[in-house]
Amino acid sequence: MEAKRFFGVGIDLGGTFIKGGVVDGEGKILLTDKIPTECEGGAEHVAERIASLALDLVSRAGLKTEDVCGVGIGSPGMIDSARGVVVYSNNLHWKDFAIGETVKKLTGLPVRVENDANVAAYGEACFGAGKGFRDLVMITLGTGVGGGIILDGIIFEGNGSAGAEIGHSVIVAGGEECTCGRRGCLECYASATGLIRETRRAIAAHPESAMAKEKEIDGRTAFLYRDTDPVAKEVTDRYIELLACGITNFANIFRPEVVLIGGGISGEGKRLTDELQKLVDREIYGGDKGPRVEVRTAALGNSAGLLGAAALAFH
Amino acid sequence: MEAKRFFGVGIDLGGTFIKGGVVDGEGKILLTDKIPTECEGGAEHVAERIASLALDLVSRAGLKTEDVCGVGIGSPGMIDSARGVVVYSNNLHWKDFAIGETVKKLTGLPVRVENDANVAAYGEACFGAGKGFRDLVMITLGTGVGGGIILDGIIFEGNGSAGAEIGHSVIVAGGEECTCGRRGCLECYASATGLIRETRRAIAAHPESAMAKEKEIDGRTAFLYRDTDPVAKEVTDRYIELLACGITNFANIFRPEVVLIGGGISGEGKRLTDELQKLVDREIYGGDKGPRVEVRTAALGNSAGLLGAAALAFH
Repeated sequence: MEAKRFFGVGIDLGGTFIKGGVVDGEGKILLTDKIPTECEGGAEHVAERIASLALDLVSRAGLKTEDVCGVGIGSPGMIDSARGVVVYSNNLHWKDFAIGETVKKLTGLPVRVENDANVAAYGEACFGAGKGFRDLVMITLGTGVGGGIILDGIIFEGNGSAGAEIGHSVIVAGGEECTCGRRGCLECYASATGLIRETRRAIAAHPESAMAKEKEIDGRTAFLYRDTDPVAKEVTDRYIELLACGITNFANIFRPEVVLIGGGISGEGKRLTDELQKLVDREIYGGDKGPRVEVRTAALGNSAGLLGAAALAFH
Repeated sequence: MEAKRFFGVGIDLGGTFIKGGVVDGEGKILLTDKIPTECEGGAEHVAERIASLALDLVSRAGLKTEDVCGVGIGSPGMIDSARGVVVYSNNLHWKDFAIGETVKKLTGLPVRVENDANVAAYGEACFGAGKGFRDLVMITLGTGVGGGIILDGIIFEGNGSAGAEIGHSVIVAGGEECTCGRRGCLECYASATGLIRETRRAIAAHPESAMAKEKEIDGRTAFLYRDTDPVAKEVTDRYIELLACGITNFANIFRPEVVLIGGGISGEGKRLTDELQKLVDREIYGGDKGPRVEVRTAALGNSAGLLGAAALAFH
């Protein structure tokens, strides 16, 4: 009986879709599905959709609710994880909604809620590239720069769950304007948005660049031409240098065992992480006198959120 | 009998002096003394000096060793606190010295060792301006910029005790050269050294500045002329702006309840912290949607290390 209970439901809540999955204790996804969030229906409506997706997945996996430890939810926004409340989410247009209590009532299952970026880091720590490490920082390079911090195996979220906003560390005081209102945040340089901006600027300044013939510029363009076009080389060198600057800052602050790189740009793989590692090894405080901080690519891709959410149910 | 045991010996170990004190559970210093470190005599010799200072202080305070919980040592360098080992200290010229075990053998008392900057933060958390807060970041503005991080009431030191090097976060990529080998660290701008450099540069560029008549330039000069000399105003404005930039980074990363400012420059008091608070309130991620991060002046001055070390013995 006990062994049968080692399943969890993970919910990755987004502004557009609710992704759900039933996961076993080893991080194997038994079944997964996604439904539209229907945010416009209001918070209670979304909670009902989460609850019915969770129960539906459990039943379709051939399980009973008694077989399941609980439901973990990774939600955007500022989360009061102790009370299971979404304090504020711009994406969902929620303020002080007790999502945890509501879904618990509807499903009869224990519910834990955490910020989605933290949950993705937790997923990597439990089942992905961070498995076996107690202390890690995960940096997700997407449209913005998100992150999660795991200290001694536990999600670090700061007072009021409002910390771990690692994308919003200024590394270039007075630099590019950030969405957060500051200037020169890591997000301005290490996000795909930042990389695309710099790629476009470089092409405008150097119309002779081989990249100029590309119709669509995205976060891969400069890396694609890195080995053949000096302009692309310069753009990517600068990108890597500033990302390494941010990583070294976190290495000096947290001295974690590993820093994981996730998100679209992490698709560059070892080509990216090898260069980052070289810079971090060189720049880290005290050089090789302290323990090394490894830089690795995250392993779970888009499933990190779902798996991390399910892992919340286990711990 | 139990109540009588609530005394601790705090040792603030420096390259030049060993400061010691007997402290009660309320943070009252019963007795304090300092002796030369005599580093040139070697690590064992220094350990013997620490032990005899500790025992001497206990006896002069009218106590027996049985009345004392233990000895806490704040040491410079990279510390393995779990084993009580100074892994590396440039100041003391030590490598892998088991100071904890050695002092324990010589005194018969339990010994705990932590990095001196972390210990000072712990002192403020237990007995000073951080009393009553669970999460705080302390930034010490001296020749360099040191710091300590207390999370959930416990010293956060990172893997191998090599974290919490908050002075070595780059805020101006490619900026001023730092002693750590990087460029643009917070330490380059927020230290007294950085402030003096900028004051000198401003005087050289503006010989009409009222500050030009000063023979000795130190970390107070620009603040002294702040209200009367536009050049001094500019230097201090820039100083405060970059310090606030670093504080806001830590606020976004840790979302602590309070950030404490210590060290020489913190003598500017509320005049400094009021301006820092204004900038942090404006720049912090999510504005007032998350809990406020307060900026305060540290309260214990040079005694923070001694008191924090003694507090190690209690906890």
